[in-house]
Amino acid sequence: MKDINTMKATVLTAALPYIQKYYGKTVVVKYGGNAMVHPDLKKAVMSDIILLSLVGINVVLIHGGGPEISGMLKRLDIPSHFVNGLRYTDEETAEVVQMVLAGKTNKDLVGLIGQLGGKAVGLCGIDGCMIQAKKMEGDYGYVGEITKVDTTPIINAINSGYIPVVATVGTDCQGHIYNINADTAAAKIAGALHAENIITLTDIRGLMRDLEDEDSLISTVHVSEVQELVSEGIISGGMIPKVKSCESAVRAGVKKAVMIDGRIEHSILIEMFSDEGIGTMFLPD
Amino acid sequence: MKDINTMKATVLTAALPYIQKYYGKTVVVKYGGNAMVHPDLKKAVMSDIILLSLVGINVVLIHGGGPEISGMLKRLDIPSHFVNGLRYTDEETAEVVQMVLAGKTNKDLVGLIGQLGGKAVGLCGIDGCMIQAKKMEGDYGYVGEITKVDTTPIINAINSGYIPVVATVGTDCQGHIYNINADTAAAKIAGALHAENIITLTDIRGLMRDLEDEDSLISTVHVSEVQELVSEGIISGGMIPKVKSCESAVRAGVKKAVMIDGRIEHSILIEMFSDEGIGTMFLPD
Amino acid sequence: MKDINTMKATVLTAALPYIQKYYGKTVVVKYGGNAMVHPDLKKAVMSDIILLSLVGINVVLIHGGGPEISGMLKRLDIPSHFVNGLRYTDEETAEVVQMVLAGKTNKDLVGLIGQLGGKAVGLCGIDGCMIQAKKMEGDYGYVGEITKVDTTPIINAINSGYIPVVATVGTDCQGHIYNINADTAAAKIAGALHAENIITLTDIRGLMRDLEDEDSLISTVHVSEVQELVSEGIISGGMIPKVKSCESAVRAGVKKAVMIDGRIEHSILIEMFSDEGIGTMFLPD
Amino acid sequence: MKDINTMKATVLTAALPYIQKYYGKTVVVKYGGNAMVHPDLKKAVMSDIILLSLVGINVVLIHGGGPEISGMLKRLDIPSHFVNGLRYTDEETAEVVQMVLAGKTNKDLVGLIGQLGGKAVGLCGIDGCMIQAKKMEGDYGYVGEITKVDTTPIINAINSGYIPVVATVGTDCQGHIYNINADTAAAKIAGALHAENIITLTDIRGLMRDLEDEDSLISTVHVSEVQELVSEGIISGGMIPKVKSCESAVRAGVKKAVMIDGRIEHSILIEMFSDEGIGTMFLPD
Amino acid sequence: MKDINTMKATVLTAALPYIQKYYGKTVVVKYGGNAMVHPDLKKAVMSDIILLSLVGINVVLIHGGGPEISGMLKRLDIPSHFVNGLRYTDEETAEVVQMVLAGKTNKDLVGLIGQLGGKAVGLCGIDGCMIQAKKMEGDYGYVGEITKVDTTPIINAINSGYIPVVATVGTDCQGHIYNINADTAAAKIAGALHAENIITLTDIRGLMRDLEDEDSLISTVHVSEVQELVSEGIISGGMIPKVKSCESAVRAGVKKAVMIDGRIEHSILIEMFSDEGIGTMFLPD
Amino acid sequence: MKDINTMKATVLTAALPYIQKYYGKTVVVKYGGNAMVHPDLKKAVMSDIILLSLVGINVVLIHGGGPEISGMLKRLDIPSHFVNGLRYTDEETAEVVQMVLAGKTNKDLVGLIGQLGGKAVGLCGIDGCMIQAKKMEGDYGYVGEITKVDTTPIINAINSGYIPVVATVGTDCQGHIYNINADTAAAKIAGALHAENIITLTDIRGLMRDLEDEDSLISTVHVSEVQELVSEGIISGGMIPKVKSCESAVRAGVKKAVMIDGRIEHSILIEMFSDEGIGTMFLPD
Repeated sequence: MKDINTMKATVLTAALPYIQKYYGKTVVVKYGGNAMVHPDLKKAVMSDIILLSLVGINVVLIHGGGPEISGMLKRLDIPSHFVNGLRYTDEETAEVVQMVLAGKTNKDLVGLIGQLGGKAVGLCGIDGCMIQAKKMEGDYGYVGEITKVDTTPIINAINSGYIPVVATVGTDCQGHIYNINADTAAAKIAGALHAENIITLTDIRGLMRDLEDEDSLISTVHVSEVQELVSEGIISGGMIPKVKSCESAVRAGVKKAVMIDGRIEHSILIEMFSDEGIGTMFLPD
Repeated sequence: MKDINTMKATVLTAALPYIQKYYGKTVVVKYGGNAMVHPDLKKAVMSDIILLSLVGINVVLIHGGGPEISGMLKRLDIPSHFVNGLRYTDEETAEVVQMVLAGKTNKDLVGLIGQLGGKAVGLCGIDGCMIQAKKMEGDYGYVGEITKVDTTPIINAINSGYIPVVATVGTDCQGHIYNINADTAAAKIAGALHAENIITLTDIRGLMRDLEDEDSLISTVHVSEVQELVSEGIISGGMIPKVKSCESAVRAGVKKAVMIDGRIEHSILIEMFSDEGIGTMFLPD
Repeated sequence: MKDINTMKATVLTAALPYIQKYYGKTVVVKYGGNAMVHPDLKKAVMSDIILLSLVGINVVLIHGGGPEISGMLKRLDIPSHFVNGLRYTDEETAEVVQMVLAGKTNKDLVGLIGQLGGKAVGLCGIDGCMIQAKKMEGDYGYVGEITKVDTTPIINAINSGYIPVVATVGTDCQGHIYNINADTAAAKIAGALHAENIITLTDIRGLMRDLEDEDSLISTVHVSEVQELVSEGIISGGMIPKVKSCESAVRAGVKKAVMIDGRIEHSILIEMFSDEGIGTMFLPD
Repeated sequence: MKDINTMKATVLTAALPYIQKYYGKTVVVKYGGNAMVHPDLKKAVMSDIILLSLVGINVVLIHGGGPEISGMLKRLDIPSHFVNGLRYTDEETAEVVQMVLAGKTNKDLVGLIGQLGGKAVGLCGIDGCMIQAKKMEGDYGYVGEITKVDTTPIINAINSGYIPVVATVGTDCQGHIYNINADTAAAKIAGALHAENIITLTDIRGLMRDLEDEDSLISTVHVSEVQELVSEGIISGGMIPKVKSCESAVRAGVKKAVMIDGRIEHSILIEMFSDEGIGTMFLPD
Repeated sequence: MKDINTMKATVLTAALPYIQKYYGKTVVVKYGGNAMVHPDLKKAVMSDIILLSLVGINVVLIHGGGPEISGMLKRLDIPSHFVNGLRYTDEETAEVVQMVLAGKTNKDLVGLIGQLGGKAVGLCGIDGCMIQAKKMEGDYGYVGEITKVDTTPIINAINSGYIPVVATVGTDCQGHIYNINADTAAAKIAGALHAENIITLTDIRGLMRDLEDEDSLISTVHVSEVQELVSEGIISGGMIPKVKSCESAVRAGVKKAVMIDGRIEHSILIEMFSDEGIGTMFLPD
Repeated sequence: MKDINTMKATVLTAALPYIQKYYGKTVVVKYGGNAMVHPDLKKAVMSDIILLSLVGINVVLIHGGGPEISGMLKRLDIPSHFVNGLRYTDEETAEVVQMVLAGKTNKDLVGLIGQLGGKAVGLCGIDGCMIQAKKMEGDYGYVGEITKVDTTPIINAINSGYIPVVATVGTDCQGHIYNINADTAAAKIAGALHAENIITLTDIRGLMRDLEDEDSLISTVHVSEVQELVSEGIISGGMIPKVKSCESAVRAGVKKAVMIDGRIEHSILIEMFSDEGIGTMFLPD
């Protein structure tokens, strides 16, 4: 008993310098993948978020909603077709994206934070015309490209003591809804908030030179090295947009962008409260 | 030309005393029925809301979402059955209610306000554990009865210069979602906000002694008279809960509760900016 | 009845975009001429001012007091003589100017606003050394030229929710009082307040190419065109100082300076709440 | 030289406890009589006011304007007649009272404070409907009795760092102006401001048992003793309303009401910065 | 490695409900005994204090300085004599108490907090006349009894983001210094601050029925039981004033007063971040 | 009696322009020498400080503690040795410096201000890591050179209505204490505070061309002249660091640095409240 308490105290004490480091700073968490699907991981992420918020860090939780959207489209018999890997988004699809992201995924997360004793409000890009978008070049329907981010509703939530949970629905403020890539949106918002840190939860260990070999994890990448890593094929496929978002966040002034393994419970705390961190971090040159 | 301008100025000037009367006061608008379905009426209501907000009135827009919920339940092949006139709400239904109300109806209204040049944020009862509920007595599944209202997120929105748009989804802050009657919720919120006025948009002219005869409209009802009007059968059927909500808002301290005809364009402005008003108003004794 | 209400609502709704445009902006109204003499027009102007204030516009009312000053000088047997069209102002005359402007005209306007349900405070250039002046070049006695404007008392009044009503008495803060041209003072104050708009009430329709022909009204003048219009004789006589004031306000950063016909009831509302406006507006190049 | 400096320092140091005593408190100065007529005394009073204001006391200067009003009425050939010692005030007279008090006396004082390096704003009872009045009982025309005092404009001035100078013109907020006794108004305002102290400048040494004998000065009167002093004839004639005002201020919660000799230069400082004080002070029982 | 991180995260997560419980609340830590002498314990206490402060708890650190005072008195050849167990405090001794407590012990703690990355300011009872005292009854010289606590400087420090560190020197604000029992002072300050909790660090495990048997620890005492425990001799000797302070803090409204073993590293964290707590806690009845 | 009052009022009135000049400005008083030793002078200085504070000047009192430190070192048998005129400061000496300065001198001054009715808080360079220092070049032990000043705790004290009294103990925020020259520290703090004025109390009349001849006092020195005065030997010995501090304060933006004779009672008031001033003032070129 005594030993356990001592151990607990030791751990808490060891967290002190990390808490001091991030105190009063803004940290954006881009939430997705397995961590969003598996209930225990989901709970662990939300509890990490609450903890960060209580120790004086302004956490902003940003999420997409992949599987839930696909599921709903399927149930509604709305056919999906993909153009260059992007879901072509007609008006009906955009409506479902908005409804599921802002009404289901978002409010579920807000509810879960409430259930764990935290205080959150759910926002989407339509609220206060927060995420302004236009059609992405090419023929993808209402797939949007962000033109402007107005972070006022996020900052109001923080200042009122609430954790803002943001669904990345875009709008042109003229009645059209846009399907926005959540990684890109998170990077833009992090930049607009002058965040200290953006943490992206993924389903891999991080960038690896050899996917079969966990020891080949690349811990640190300076943004100027990204292009080469793409050329070498180390960054490829679905990783490209994620890495590009990290890169753009750092170029927009965020001090550090980290991709961590959302499949590990409490990976956010581990990342933030230890020196070594986990996953791959992207830094300015 | 000159005459039109003079007329315009006369009308604006005539609005002055009404604006003065409500300046800095809170007015809750319970929005539903035809006014919510017909696009032109919808636009007119939102433009009224923005106008009220600009002339210094703290408007709070509260809505349910009847037909959209039913439509979605049908599309998803979720059977509805009714118990004593209330939709039995199992967990799956409650999820759909949340998704449609908070993700579709709510954000559509927020978007429409934005499109018309206003600034709104969409909230539901889950945000900041705002509308707390428990199961209603009887066997209705997750049909909820409000236990507590925490208006902080609404007040934060007002103070930050946004029009709060509220979807009446309830929660027990323990992970359960409740289907809440929107009229009842609006009345409770109006009471908790110490609102000056609650305006309920309906699909009738108001309370009428003879439904066939528009001249039989009852303009004013004191809350102590409600019971008798029910006994007399003048208030009956679907009107009962609406009138009860008005009554309970007034009993909770709201100065005036008005039921107006949402089918008339700009009925909110007409009600607020004229002496005679329209529809039926419920007053304290 | 129904039609009138609909019409009213339509007018109010039509005002919405104009209210949005000026919301939170500062508008200076220079008040004088017939609109100041005729009781009904006076009341209409004050009610316009209150309305603008209630819809979130920071209105500042600035007035001179021509006829009342002349009347009082006459009653007190103080002879007036004019030098180059300017009233030579000896110390005794300056005292009367101060007394009438700050004590009679100003407080009468404040009282009228109060009577109509608005809240105003009356200020003159002596309050807080607001309008600082020195003797104008030439031999005009205490006719003053503004050296500095300190808008603090005006801004305090606005921030406390009062409409500032300003009598354009000047002072050197050393015990001397100056007779200041009200148009010039209004332009200077509008500039110092970074006003969006200055509206000058006059006794003509606006600038006209042909005074006999109302259709010859010039709607828009860019400030660089003023000199030419003077050369052409289109701006002449008493119009010159009024136009020069408009020009100087625009050159000092005010977005728009408008001369409107104060003889038309509610001309301020008509000007501000319609696209075409009335009268002549002066714009930056 | 050295001795003078030492003496100066000693005096300043001796003032310390008095400054501490009144720091942050409100002191109303009712200004009138000789101190208002004689230029040197006038300057001395204003410099005292500025000094009090700088050492952290919230001074409010309230004035009437007897001789200036009479002078102007005479110059304008408006006959004065008196009823029971009160000037009958018809509408024309009331207008002159307003004009002279609010436009001449008031702004002259504001200007003098400015000239001496202080910051003041001049207000009258019409500003913000500050001094609300109705006709006094009896047939005196527009001689007013105060019905309500709204001190908001005074408090705004103090909070913005200005010395409020108040002309005691009354209004019914319906377009009528009332001639108000300045002593009464000062007492009411002092009460409404919860002032620590009201100082009335008069033309006598204070209350004296024997007017011929300066040593018969009564230093302290408890309000319950006033009636007896009236019965004894020690308080009589024009002193009665002044004493009644002091009494009513104390009964309204002002801690001390002092009548001092305004003919003595800097009598305000002497009163406030010494233990013995000068004149007669009225205290609660 | 992975396991350690998981364990760390688990511990941090387990702390969450305790942090939520105390968030925004005030906790007074009375610091003394071994924890104050042994450098490692000292560092551990300061790091606990900083951690509490960072997680949103308003910690106030209150200390005496026993051994350092005795040591200094000895070095200065000032003889100590004790009356009824209290050090008789002559003026010279009082001066040394002040100097050592406020200049050495206090600033050393402030410096140590700074060294560990925290922000603190050191205060003693003389600052802002914070701890007001008079001579204790009996003949103990300048041993003081607290007459009033003015917590303003403590609250200012908290509001400015500093941890207040308070040396319990008393003063009569008339130039005399009092030696005050630190436990008593801490209890009074906790009461005046409406603290949630006061934690007293001692050199024992807590209240024990049998000092030889650690298992006889009494976990919870309701304040009404204190008297009986004294009668039974379970509370005796030097424990009496400590227990009495705990009791009086609770009676003054503090929700919980806990005596914990300062010899255990991080005992503060263990106490606050676990359900069972350690030591003995005193609760209201 | 009357004459004395008149004289008092005259003096107070004469102070008016000086109070106006410094109103809301920051003035640093460097306190030392005889004025710190002699009880009457001490009281006079504190009462001057309180007076300045009450008339709206932000006074900051900065002190060293020469004789008290030496006395304590002697009583503790800690030998002092001097290197190039500076006391070599080993760790034990540094501890005594801290204890005496921060615990004795500082809190005595705070207590004296409290006794005279003022409100002060005592701070030293350790509080909030306010005076950051490193070892001075050369072999002087813990004699420190200031590397950074963080004035936050001083400004917090002023904003909360307290007079900050600052003991010039330095720290490296890593656990080491530095003995800092109080004149240098005062100059640095004055610079960091953008003070209007720094007043140094010394034991001489000011800079004199001939020490025997009081009439040879140099009233004004522009900072560019200092070097020459040193070369000429007019500034020499212990005056050099004092003058250098004055010079550096002025170069850091302080408008005026004055050295005055602390042996004259109320020399601070005399300096600040007269035109001629006393002593020598250093001005920017």
